[in-house]
Amino acid sequence: MEYLEGVKKAKTLEIGELLVQAEGTEVKVNGAVHTIRDMGNVAFVILRKRDGLVQCVFEEGVTAFDLKELKEASAVEVLGTIRKEERAAHGIEIRLKEIKVLSEPDEPLPLPISKWKLNTSLEAKLNMRPISLRNVRERAKFKIQEGLVRGFRDFLYEQGFTEIHTPKLGAKSAEGGANLFKLEYFHRPAILQQSPQLYKQMMVGVFDRVFETGPVFRAEKHNTKRHLNEYTSLDFEMGYIDGFEDIMAMETGFLQYTMKLLAKDYQKELDMLGITLPDVSKIPAVRFDKAKEMVAEKYNRTIRNPYDLEPEEEHLIGELFKEDYGADFVFITHYPSKKRPFYAMDDPQDARFTLSFDLLFRGLEITTGGQRIHSYQQLLDKIEAKKMTTEGLEQYLDTFRHGMPPHGGLGIGLERLTMQLISEDNVRETTLFPRDLSRLEP
Amino acid sequence: MEYLEGVKKAKTLEIGELLVQAEGTEVKVNGAVHTIRDMGNVAFVILRKRDGLVQCVFEEGVTAFDLKELKEASAVEVLGTIRKEERAAHGIEIRLKEIKVLSEPDEPLPLPISKWKLNTSLEAKLNMRPISLRNVRERAKFKIQEGLVRGFRDFLYEQGFTEIHTPKLGAKSAEGGANLFKLEYFHRPAILQQSPQLYKQMMVGVFDRVFETGPVFRAEKHNTKRHLNEYTSLDFEMGYIDGFEDIMAMETGFLQYTMKLLAKDYQKELDMLGITLPDVSKIPAVRFDKAKEMVAEKYNRTIRNPYDLEPEEEHLIGELFKEDYGADFVFITHYPSKKRPFYAMDDPQDARFTLSFDLLFRGLEITTGGQRIHSYQQLLDKIEAKKMTTEGLEQYLDTFRHGMPPHGGLGIGLERLTMQLISEDNVRETTLFPRDLSRLEP
Repeated sequence: MEYLEGVKKAKTLEIGELLVQAEGTEVKVNGAVHTIRDMGNVAFVILRKRDGLVQCVFEEGVTAFDLKELKEASAVEVLGTIRKEERAAHGIEIRLKEIKVLSEPDEPLPLPISKWKLNTSLEAKLNMRPISLRNVRERAKFKIQEGLVRGFRDFLYEQGFTEIHTPKLGAKSAEGGANLFKLEYFHRPAILQQSPQLYKQMMVGVFDRVFETGPVFRAEKHNTKRHLNEYTSLDFEMGYIDGFEDIMAMETGFLQYTMKLLAKDYQKELDMLGITLPDVSKIPAVRFDKAKEMVAEKYNRTIRNPYDLEPEEEHLIGELFKEDYGADFVFITHYPSKKRPFYAMDDPQDARFTLSFDLLFRGLEITTGGQRIHSYQQLLDKIEAKKMTTEGLEQYLDTFRHGMPPHGGLGIGLERLTMQLISEDNVRETTLFPRDLSRLEP
Repeated sequence: MEYLEGVKKAKTLEIGELLVQAEGTEVKVNGAVHTIRDMGNVAFVILRKRDGLVQCVFEEGVTAFDLKELKEASAVEVLGTIRKEERAAHGIEIRLKEIKVLSEPDEPLPLPISKWKLNTSLEAKLNMRPISLRNVRERAKFKIQEGLVRGFRDFLYEQGFTEIHTPKLGAKSAEGGANLFKLEYFHRPAILQQSPQLYKQMMVGVFDRVFETGPVFRAEKHNTKRHLNEYTSLDFEMGYIDGFEDIMAMETGFLQYTMKLLAKDYQKELDMLGITLPDVSKIPAVRFDKAKEMVAEKYNRTIRNPYDLEPEEEHLIGELFKEDYGADFVFITHYPSKKRPFYAMDDPQDARFTLSFDLLFRGLEITTGGQRIHSYQQLLDKIEAKKMTTEGLEQYLDTFRHGMPPHGGLGIGLERLTMQLISEDNVRETTLFPRDLSRLEP
């Protein structure tokens, strides 16, 4: 009988391993041929590996291979010796002895991916996503995105949260009927969840603190630079809170933890994109109505609708807080009840407003959160006041009938957070395969 | 201006913190009233917290509260002093001075959740999921499930994998037209992805090694104990492999890492459910045709279809390997080409079989994986041989036309893995909110 006994040491080396080899050591390395620069007697063959680029030197007579047979975008395994070379990436290069081609492309690449900046339209980049992401700077965006999700999870595990997986197919959704994708589920009408809201709340009664990182679906007909019809939502919900300030404090903690993680494990990618991490040691919080006033005053605007925040106002709040307080982030609190869903808790001091907040990052909303109603009767009253029906909410309401602690939570749009962090101006730049009004492929 | 500065130390203590307090220390604790046992002069009020149960002692005259006013399922915050008590959970109890009720239920609980074993039908448990999970053993199943996902991610990060988020809405799916949920996407036909297969393959050309943990959707009309119409798939895909054995080795490594993690961080939950972790130091691998022969011989069965594995045969393979080799896991390799999708690589020595595998855990398939075709021309040939069309696969095929390394990967069904690990007999037991032919709520 044959047995598998776990991961064996590979015979090829990764970049981290190459850097600790003595000069002259013979090494095997694999990778994709990122580019070939033929200088006559010698040629530089740059390999693309998951951790970065490695410069290999092809020398006529030394390397037992015909350079003419080597194509860019081939997957290869090379044998050679390590040499220090300050001008090369990571300060090393490999003098090639042998090249073994593992696979070859059928056609030349349609994009100049080896250029430092891929000056291609967003449209073209998205149409050829699996190719355009081979550019190392394009790829770096998604490594940073990985760091954001890791930070979210690792911080919350530390804080006693349990990870949950809630269904995306359902009979009914959290926020009512609008903007839902509908489908047929074995001859019954079904929807795709636009948020794990109701599920995470129900699970607070079980685990006290829960989180989920997963896709959400919004059938909104927005065609803007900041909207997607499917995105990754970072959600948490926690019980036994004293107020919605606890939720904002937890989000601040997440950002602090995650910026440290990025600086530790993703500095290479941050440098590639020229990103300086924002200061998150303290984040200002201001009331919704106060923020509107501040913007009206500073920028000489009239307040048209006191119960809504226009995108332009969000942007100006960002500008104001950057200029006057040096802050990249700002919590806007006490959103009007009219603009919040039925489960949002009204401010007992003034029921026109809620105990809720948005977090703006450089003038863009990246989080909505707040305290939720935990009393069964209050929920019923709110549903009635909003002229909604309890149909489809039976089990949700039943959970509250049988006792729920004071609680609250939030949802963060991962792609938007990434976009603002790396100063992109379109959320599609930070989405692997965006879904919008016109895009369902690739 | 007010500022948020991160997570503040809570004034209430969690169980880990209670255990390090000196006897007689005054502490504040919050939690749900799990059960009340009134003994006359004293009463035991058991609090349910996220980490377990805490015994509190109510004494007439000492506790400034009327016990009659306390309801099971209330959320409370209590003040009291720590006392060593061997018979209580964790070896401590709290002598109550004060009880503050944070919220109250409107109705008594419909299930006896404080019983050690919740002897309720699966149907009733699922109908009242947010209540039935308040039973600590029911809840423990999902903590263990969390450990499995954590182990998967943490192990793969260590192994140089990048986490990706691929879209669930698409125009076309990986495995062809059958068993897909269909919907309308802004006046265009769309489907829900039954696997991230094509996306993770395309991303191998970018990141070399990728993984994703997310929902997949299967419109299969199976009504069995092991099928769900939506489940969480743990997927990875890796480039520069020497063969599909590298994929099996990586999965073995994941299991080894994760069993250690469970033993370290989830022992409490394992003990609660009486689970002994399986030995994963080595996992046997046997060819598909050989496994069928072994079962036919040992159990005196005739082989009806040499190209398919019946559920009964899977079960018997599990039994055989447990009896004869002491193995809970077994890799079944070289599945027939007829039973594998177009992207599976055929065995060059015998094209009737593929370089692929399933992993059986106690007689149930929990993983399908293998090496994939990386040559553009071979993919075209295989698509033709399978009488499929390339329509909708344009970008996928284009990725291969522009060079892809040899690669392979796998998908693990999270709920099935959990089910087998904790010896449940229905996958719905290990799914928070199952979706099946009849169940779309809660």
